[in-house]
Amino acid sequence: MSLLIIGTMAFDALETPFGKVDRIIGGSATYAAWAASNFAKPIKQVSIVGGDFPMEEFAALEERGVAFEGVEVVPDGKSFFWSGRYHMDMNTRDTLVTELNVLAQFDPKIPESYQDCQYVMLGNLVPAVQISVLQQLKTRPKLVIMDTMNFWMDIAMDDLKKVLGMVDLLMVNDSEARQLSGEHSIVKAAKKIQAMGPKYLIIKKGEHGALLFYENQIFSAPALPLEDVFDPTGAGDSFAGGFIGYLTRIDDISFESMKAAVIIGSAMASYCVEKFGPTRLKELTAEDINNRVNEFVALANFEIK
Amino acid sequence: MSLLIIGTMAFDALETPFGKVDRIIGGSATYAAWAASNFAKPIKQVSIVGGDFPMEEFAALEERGVAFEGVEVVPDGKSFFWSGRYHMDMNTRDTLVTELNVLAQFDPKIPESYQDCQYVMLGNLVPAVQISVLQQLKTRPKLVIMDTMNFWMDIAMDDLKKVLGMVDLLMVNDSEARQLSGEHSIVKAAKKIQAMGPKYLIIKKGEHGALLFYENQIFSAPALPLEDVFDPTGAGDSFAGGFIGYLTRIDDISFESMKAAVIIGSAMASYCVEKFGPTRLKELTAEDINNRVNEFVALANFEIK
Repeated sequence: MSLLIIGTMAFDALETPFGKVDRIIGGSATYAAWAASNFAKPIKQVSIVGGDFPMEEFAALEERGVAFEGVEVVPDGKSFFWSGRYHMDMNTRDTLVTELNVLAQFDPKIPESYQDCQYVMLGNLVPAVQISVLQQLKTRPKLVIMDTMNFWMDIAMDDLKKVLGMVDLLMVNDSEARQLSGEHSIVKAAKKIQAMGPKYLIIKKGEHGALLFYENQIFSAPALPLEDVFDPTGAGDSFAGGFIGYLTRIDDISFESMKAAVIIGSAMASYCVEKFGPTRLKELTAEDINNRVNEFVALANFEIK
Repeated sequence: MSLLIIGTMAFDALETPFGKVDRIIGGSATYAAWAASNFAKPIKQVSIVGGDFPMEEFAALEERGVAFEGVEVVPDGKSFFWSGRYHMDMNTRDTLVTELNVLAQFDPKIPESYQDCQYVMLGNLVPAVQISVLQQLKTRPKLVIMDTMNFWMDIAMDDLKKVLGMVDLLMVNDSEARQLSGEHSIVKAAKKIQAMGPKYLIIKKGEHGALLFYENQIFSAPALPLEDVFDPTGAGDSFAGGFIGYLTRIDDISFESMKAAVIIGSAMASYCVEKFGPTRLKELTAEDINNRVNEFVALANFEIK
């Protein structure tokens, strides 16, 4: 099966209590593609970058089965740039700089060769762009998942509600779920969000794991207890990439398969945070992933006699 | 197997966003005994009450297999009284009134008939009293678990460290674990606390579930996602009672059994919070408990293909 991923490919500058990098590859589609490429092939990427984006990054992803026909390169433009500083608890961060650069003119054209994609991930972007991508697909994919953030709830709620009505699954963190629904109780928030369109909902709770909702069923996935989170950047995108990459591979969207996919996504996120940017994701072997998934099994498994 | 529970039997006045009660039965040993009595018999209670404590409460617990030879009744004294108000998020509360009353003179004498107890729960009390109970036991029980709170870390750290060296398992919430260890990372906190004595450690995270630590193994138990928490009072004591009640019944303290016990404890806590005080705990049938445990299985269960 083919997987379509749309999102940013960018540069980040990051500061955590453990160190600092001035310029490292980032972007939701970058993290998602690295994570998904462990499971799915081909991955058809949609994004926009400036002439400053390194050719080696494309080459490295190409080796993993990622296609770039849908990635627009603006030779005299600059790639999207984000700079942030994490606080000691790693749950809160300050945005220091946001330079949209070429992202400001992002109007993606889906190539004909992408029309076979049955699995689609809409990374966190302005909702109008997410809508445009779905409208360009001639046949409805088997599964469309999306990410979003509080920023779009503040400034583009109408468009956000429109795209929510077009997707199968939304993934947000707990504070975003509360803002979107106006409910403090996570269970009530989930019901309201499911009524807005997405049949499936994943609420990410950082170090407390994630909840998957579908009809009246709930699955609670643990997070791997970590001594240190080195850099949380990209953890959510790695989760999303692992989640949909796994589903693309097994080509099954039953609730049982989605539960497994949440664990795969959690495993990818747990690796992502071990080093700056996508560094750790790029090093992973199949054995690493298998070992980490087994850690999740040991962590969550119990039997009542 | 016999189970010894020491803790408070008391009155509470409670205020939550859902309502108010001026005087309801409370106390750590009360909640723990109600929860444990679904699994273990006999339960040998150690506590102190005033002449105001209702005889019907003793009678109701006696029917469930709870013995009171170790409970001192001070006829002209008043029972311990606590009054608190919960905030909207139910995670924070203000203590309005604490009247120690007879608890100020609590100097428990363990009756000879209690010496056969192989399972012991030390409810949250001044650490010197917890120590005194353990010193009165002629043979070392098979399992001693204890609860404590931040208050004792502030005013009786030396005694607290002494009792930590005498028990097998400590259960605290995440903020207490951080205070006790001086570590923000829960994994680092757990290692430091385990080095203080208890081989087993349970860190309770409220709506985010609980973690069980033993050597290098970790078990992550989910919390049941609830639409509303009506009254969180006693949830931790119900957890403890369910946990040790189940272990007393199966008489097995392997890590695998402790994992199951954490789920049983979580099920009891999830029922406790549905009504004021121990009201809901008192109504439970074996079928109710079985149903709730099955909900936890469905919530946590997954299979990677």
